[in-house]
Amino acid sequence: MPNSPENNIKDKLSAMTGSVGVIKPQTLHFDQPLKLVCGKVLRQYDLVYETYGELNKEHSNAILICHALSGDHHAAGYHSKSDPKPGWWDSCIGPGKPIDTHHFFVVSLNNLGGCGGSTGPTSINPDTGELYGPDFPIVTVKDWVESQARLADVLEICSWVAVVGGSLGGMQALAWSINHPNRVKHAVVIASTAKLSAQNIAFNEISRKAITSDPDFREGYFARENIIPAKGLMLARMIGHVTYLSDASMGEKFGRDKKSPDFNFNYGVEFEVESYLNYQGERFTKNFDANTYLLMTRALDYFDPAADFDGSLEAAIATAKCSYFVVSFSTDWRFSPERSEVLVEAMIKARKSVTYSEIDAPYGHDAFLIATPRYIDVFSAYMGRVAKEITHEG
Amino acid sequence: MPNSPENNIKDKLSAMTGSVGVIKPQTLHFDQPLKLVCGKVLRQYDLVYETYGELNKEHSNAILICHALSGDHHAAGYHSKSDPKPGWWDSCIGPGKPIDTHHFFVVSLNNLGGCGGSTGPTSINPDTGELYGPDFPIVTVKDWVESQARLADVLEICSWVAVVGGSLGGMQALAWSINHPNRVKHAVVIASTAKLSAQNIAFNEISRKAITSDPDFREGYFARENIIPAKGLMLARMIGHVTYLSDASMGEKFGRDKKSPDFNFNYGVEFEVESYLNYQGERFTKNFDANTYLLMTRALDYFDPAADFDGSLEAAIATAKCSYFVVSFSTDWRFSPERSEVLVEAMIKARKSVTYSEIDAPYGHDAFLIATPRYIDVFSAYMGRVAKEITHEG
Repeated sequence: MPNSPENNIKDKLSAMTGSVGVIKPQTLHFDQPLKLVCGKVLRQYDLVYETYGELNKEHSNAILICHALSGDHHAAGYHSKSDPKPGWWDSCIGPGKPIDTHHFFVVSLNNLGGCGGSTGPTSINPDTGELYGPDFPIVTVKDWVESQARLADVLEICSWVAVVGGSLGGMQALAWSINHPNRVKHAVVIASTAKLSAQNIAFNEISRKAITSDPDFREGYFARENIIPAKGLMLARMIGHVTYLSDASMGEKFGRDKKSPDFNFNYGVEFEVESYLNYQGERFTKNFDANTYLLMTRALDYFDPAADFDGSLEAAIATAKCSYFVVSFSTDWRFSPERSEVLVEAMIKARKSVTYSEIDAPYGHDAFLIATPRYIDVFSAYMGRVAKEITHEG
Repeated sequence: MPNSPENNIKDKLSAMTGSVGVIKPQTLHFDQPLKLVCGKVLRQYDLVYETYGELNKEHSNAILICHALSGDHHAAGYHSKSDPKPGWWDSCIGPGKPIDTHHFFVVSLNNLGGCGGSTGPTSINPDTGELYGPDFPIVTVKDWVESQARLADVLEICSWVAVVGGSLGGMQALAWSINHPNRVKHAVVIASTAKLSAQNIAFNEISRKAITSDPDFREGYFARENIIPAKGLMLARMIGHVTYLSDASMGEKFGRDKKSPDFNFNYGVEFEVESYLNYQGERFTKNFDANTYLLMTRALDYFDPAADFDGSLEAAIATAKCSYFVVSFSTDWRFSPERSEVLVEAMIKARKSVTYSEIDAPYGHDAFLIATPRYIDVFSAYMGRVAKEITHEG
């Protein structure tokens, strides 16, 4: 329907703002059982995804976007004309943006175990007719890659010209390069790491404990009682949020700004930063599922591709055939530049082609979502080279 | 009683281990009302304290130790012969240690609002005959300094040769120098800051929210029902604990060590670091009061001596007459070296005598409690000079 009202709006938005416009998510159902790393089997599942740009005739211009902990399939564009907010990576995906939809066909899915529409704890378990809740099996990065490979099969994408992700998304890009070396030409690993540190795991554990300690969690079966563990989920989000920002960026944004000129000397909100955190935490509880939060943090914890290669990251990466683009941010203390450098070092030792950039940005881990000029320039330059490599073999 | 059995044990321990030996806490009752910064008045209160070493004839060798968030009066020595653990700063206080009890008379108290024996939320409110609980007024660093000054009066200590503290204790040392310039000769400010950053306040707010969100908190009146908000207090401690350690020290201690060879794929304990954090959190709930935790974090938040001087830290410090010794630790990201440097810069601008040392230590904020050689050397050198200055005016 090239002249539908929806497409007209899409064209207008696209022309005006560099946006991919109004996007409609799609759903694919998979009936082929998926054996998970944990040993359990998902007999059937749905994957929700969005696409931006056009797949070329040779199917050689497809890029897979992998999301992070609280992300979903809605990476770019708007869901309606009145949608106030674009997708979570709209800063980097769209016409003229680093992942330029003039050149690339972009696929962005909600991962298994998510709460954005793909099968997860908020879905009905076909074996029981009840919500999965805590009975949804724990999925790992490797499982996600397998489910994404099946999505690629259906979309007739033999090989991604690039798999791209930040944070937990970067882990998926790395795993793709190792587990499906013939199906990835470029892996773009942004603000990520080859494995979590003890400190990272500790923060995840505290977040999980916050959720599971909430009496409204009901061992994960809260939805059956029409409640949510809002206080626990709020705490988990607040902890996460502080670790995504830098001390400097919080200082610049809030400093010690007070809510009122004089202190109240109580435990209510005295400082602006408290008010902001409470707001962020509360808002999150309305949009995110507590069981999915647990599952995503565990996927982060478990990720360690070197473990399959006697602990050698170099040996893991040696199996890859792609080129790598690795990006870190100077003030990211969750996944610091040093962690990216470990990854780059292993790539060099494994004699892979690797481009590395540490971007000087004050926004902590969240910098990977923010369109700072240097980041956009470097990212655009790399993806521009990728676009030039796209084969037209027909 | 110089030949009492207790003193014999004390002497033996002291000779063997460089310990101050077995120590008996003392209590002083104060009847003079204390007007607090929050506007409320404490009509009467107790302060529990310990002393180590001997006060000289001139009363010129007294050192005040100020404790941090979870500390108390028990800074050095043992409470009994069978006591398995010494006081929290036994690494630095004792014969031959930086705060050498051969030279100094050391006073260490539990602050007002604490839960170590001084009047606080776990004490009886004389106005009602009930536990204070959440009705105990919020006290600030300035209030602590005033109560400590009254303790000094009773002990006939006109002037401390040094006021010493780490973290929140360092804030008290700084406040002493500004609020009682004639009563402090040296202020020793270790791993501290002139004010919390937005990130610091954020972590405190999350800890408080963890406690107040626990249904067993009962708006602070949990003790009346013989319960404690154990889950909330545990979370608060876990958050605090991770921020006291460095990524590097956690990495060295735990790395990604697993509890069992294979993962269980659930939300129980998979990694050693989870086990450790849970243990630390649980242990804390048995020893610490939730209302005190709230109060101590608020004292941290509110501290900002520059606020009384139109925001000028230099002007605040200009009122002081003491010499300063400032120490920071390279991997302390809670109160980083940069924060100590801001303090030192203000001291220099205010033309004060200041000695500054950044110690290279891997232990994060907790480094101020750990006897690393360089720290002990530098600390001993400074305190040795202080000891030499002690006047014998008679």
